[in-house]
Amino acid sequence: MYEDIDLEQAWRLLQEHSPSLRHEVVSATAALGRILAQTLYAGQDLPPQAQSAVDGYALGENHGMDNNPYVLCGSLSTAESASAVLDKGHAKAVNTGGVLPLGTVAVIPHEKVSVKGEHLYLLGKVKPGDCIKRAGEDFARNERLLTAGTQVDPTALGLLAAFGIDVVEVLERPRVAIICLADNIVPRGIEPGSGQMRDSNGPMLSGFVSEQGGITVALHYPPHTGGSLNIVLQELSRQTELVLLVGGTYQDGENTSRLLMEDVGAQVIFWGVSIQPGSHAGAGKLGNCLLLSLSGNPAACAVNYHLYAAPVMRNLQGMPWYYRQVTARCRNGFPKKTGSRRFVRGRACWQNSGWEVEVLPGQKPSMLRSWLGCNALIDLPPGSGPIAEGEEVRVLLLTDYTVSLVED
Amino acid sequence: MYEDIDLEQAWRLLQEHSPSLRHEVVSATAALGRILAQTLYAGQDLPPQAQSAVDGYALGENHGMDNNPYVLCGSLSTAESASAVLDKGHAKAVNTGGVLPLGTVAVIPHEKVSVKGEHLYLLGKVKPGDCIKRAGEDFARNERLLTAGTQVDPTALGLLAAFGIDVVEVLERPRVAIICLADNIVPRGIEPGSGQMRDSNGPMLSGFVSEQGGITVALHYPPHTGGSLNIVLQELSRQTELVLLVGGTYQDGENTSRLLMEDVGAQVIFWGVSIQPGSHAGAGKLGNCLLLSLSGNPAACAVNYHLYAAPVMRNLQGMPWYYRQVTARCRNGFPKKTGSRRFVRGRACWQNSGWEVEVLPGQKPSMLRSWLGCNALIDLPPGSGPIAEGEEVRVLLLTDYTVSLVED
Repeated sequence: MYEDIDLEQAWRLLQEHSPSLRHEVVSATAALGRILAQTLYAGQDLPPQAQSAVDGYALGENHGMDNNPYVLCGSLSTAESASAVLDKGHAKAVNTGGVLPLGTVAVIPHEKVSVKGEHLYLLGKVKPGDCIKRAGEDFARNERLLTAGTQVDPTALGLLAAFGIDVVEVLERPRVAIICLADNIVPRGIEPGSGQMRDSNGPMLSGFVSEQGGITVALHYPPHTGGSLNIVLQELSRQTELVLLVGGTYQDGENTSRLLMEDVGAQVIFWGVSIQPGSHAGAGKLGNCLLLSLSGNPAACAVNYHLYAAPVMRNLQGMPWYYRQVTARCRNGFPKKTGSRRFVRGRACWQNSGWEVEVLPGQKPSMLRSWLGCNALIDLPPGSGPIAEGEEVRVLLLTDYTVSLVED
Repeated sequence: MYEDIDLEQAWRLLQEHSPSLRHEVVSATAALGRILAQTLYAGQDLPPQAQSAVDGYALGENHGMDNNPYVLCGSLSTAESASAVLDKGHAKAVNTGGVLPLGTVAVIPHEKVSVKGEHLYLLGKVKPGDCIKRAGEDFARNERLLTAGTQVDPTALGLLAAFGIDVVEVLERPRVAIICLADNIVPRGIEPGSGQMRDSNGPMLSGFVSEQGGITVALHYPPHTGGSLNIVLQELSRQTELVLLVGGTYQDGENTSRLLMEDVGAQVIFWGVSIQPGSHAGAGKLGNCLLLSLSGNPAACAVNYHLYAAPVMRNLQGMPWYYRQVTARCRNGFPKKTGSRRFVRGRACWQNSGWEVEVLPGQKPSMLRSWLGCNALIDLPPGSGPIAEGEEVRVLLLTDYTVSLVED
């Protein structure tokens, strides 16, 4: 067990102890956003036969292509044209994507011909192969289409449909349980009594989980939902890959969250990371489930989620672990000195002169305000002074990931 | 009706003819990703009462704060401490977020005190107000919380929960219908016959719609799903804000898609945009429904969607219209000359030296391959020559939006 470690060590330890996801089979229509657990190959050529790339005319052989005129054949149905043969010197109207009759040497767009009765005159040059989509031109039979680990996007949905793939094997969605340990918060639907307040951490964390493709299977408030906390945690650790214990990192002189991990027989991986806000975070492992103890202070809780839980959620799904780190010009500065390494909530945007970041208002660990519009964490090294307007700072971009820990 | 216009004019026309969305009321638990149709205000202070910002001890008045020792009071329950009073010279253990007894002047973290029996000795300096979260410090009663037009993110979910807001008024999801006009494609579940192929456009477009928060209410294949196409289109235009007509821009010498718009009495807004791929795109309006005619060639269809439909989908939802445009170094070049303005599919990424973009393989308008991993469109001006490796190009970032049309 490691105590009061630095963030990079916490990341390495979390990577080492990452849980794994099982596979499931889903219909292609429900696969958007899911992570493929199988590599898919082309079962046939795409396009399956040579097709016209334009709306125009298929041209047969003609003693040299530019030998005007061609004799126009009548229109054929799709099924007929697939087995039709284009005689020497003949031409036939075709649509984009339409199958070409056998004997087609090239296709010419309709705007480059002149039609007079049954004769077609080329107005431009044409070479054999022009405007023809070859069979297998996009994907050849047996070629790899999509690799295991790929997230299914709309293009992948198009590919699955093009190849008639109706079901795919994907990773299960990460299942997450959230247990709120603070004794003075109440869940949604309960009117807070004297000295109590409504919980905001549970709904916020559940939103983060959902945005990362996970499912919150339980949102547990021990004083309200009852049952032995140890038994609840043991049960949830069997049903999930990640349990978030919120608050209770230091309560009445006891670290409830850490005692709880020890009581259920979890391996405590680390406790305390030398950052602010949220330095009391910790991690444990119970079976295949990672237990993360996050601060109960809302803004610190969100920082903890993004620094510990979010990379694990990505890693589970085979996505890049680390946030992209950039240097940005701080538009408005930050007035405080920094003791231990500090993560300030900011809004980064790219300008043609480079990255800029604005420190958001409400930077106390308790204030949700600093997360409104937040898309970046400004990473201030220990012992740094106030940040002046226009000063350069290191920034973690919360919406951009990379596989390597250190970038320059 | 405008013909063969430039892209910027098409954008202006689409903005002018944008449909509108109705409102609906949803539960806060289902609001993630939805667009608020109402501005929300704080019904009370957050936090509701003064709270401790740390785990430590609430300190009462003491003839100057540093006058050691303080007398420790027994532990109180949450409800008791809300109405408790801290006597002069007394101190009481409190947890982060815990309500402070009346008379609390400051809070000191547990690591800065020494406790001997019933006495507490301060080891550091403390000032009145230290480590206290004031009532209303995060949001004051009646302050604006979230503005109409905001997309509900996890932080907003936290805020809704913190203020006990259980239902919110949001914009309805955009409803979209997709009609595939090509006569040689078959929908999912039907084995393609001779000369036919499986449709990939419908599932791909439906994925794009879904990623943008919309719902595909119908995926219609006229030769298979039957009924009069005119009646189907009229009916769908009453049920949706957007109908995508795919393919059929030029078929047997007729523009099926445009004739269809005219037949149902739609106002044709423009036809033909001088870009490649997908120059035959057009737009019409029928009631509150925008009709967009997209190329049936898969890659051109996706380009058309991103240039015409995606901005409309964002605009409908009050989101920024335009893609962010950046200058990027083209890593691998592009070998072809460009006639009319050309949109080449690419993968852009930001490097510390600036933006870089890679031309993706398979750039024919029919090839889905060029959309695998595509996050940018390289915008080549008319008449440009081949792009050399390392040359600078203009790029539309498909994942980053802005409100203004022209940027530098």
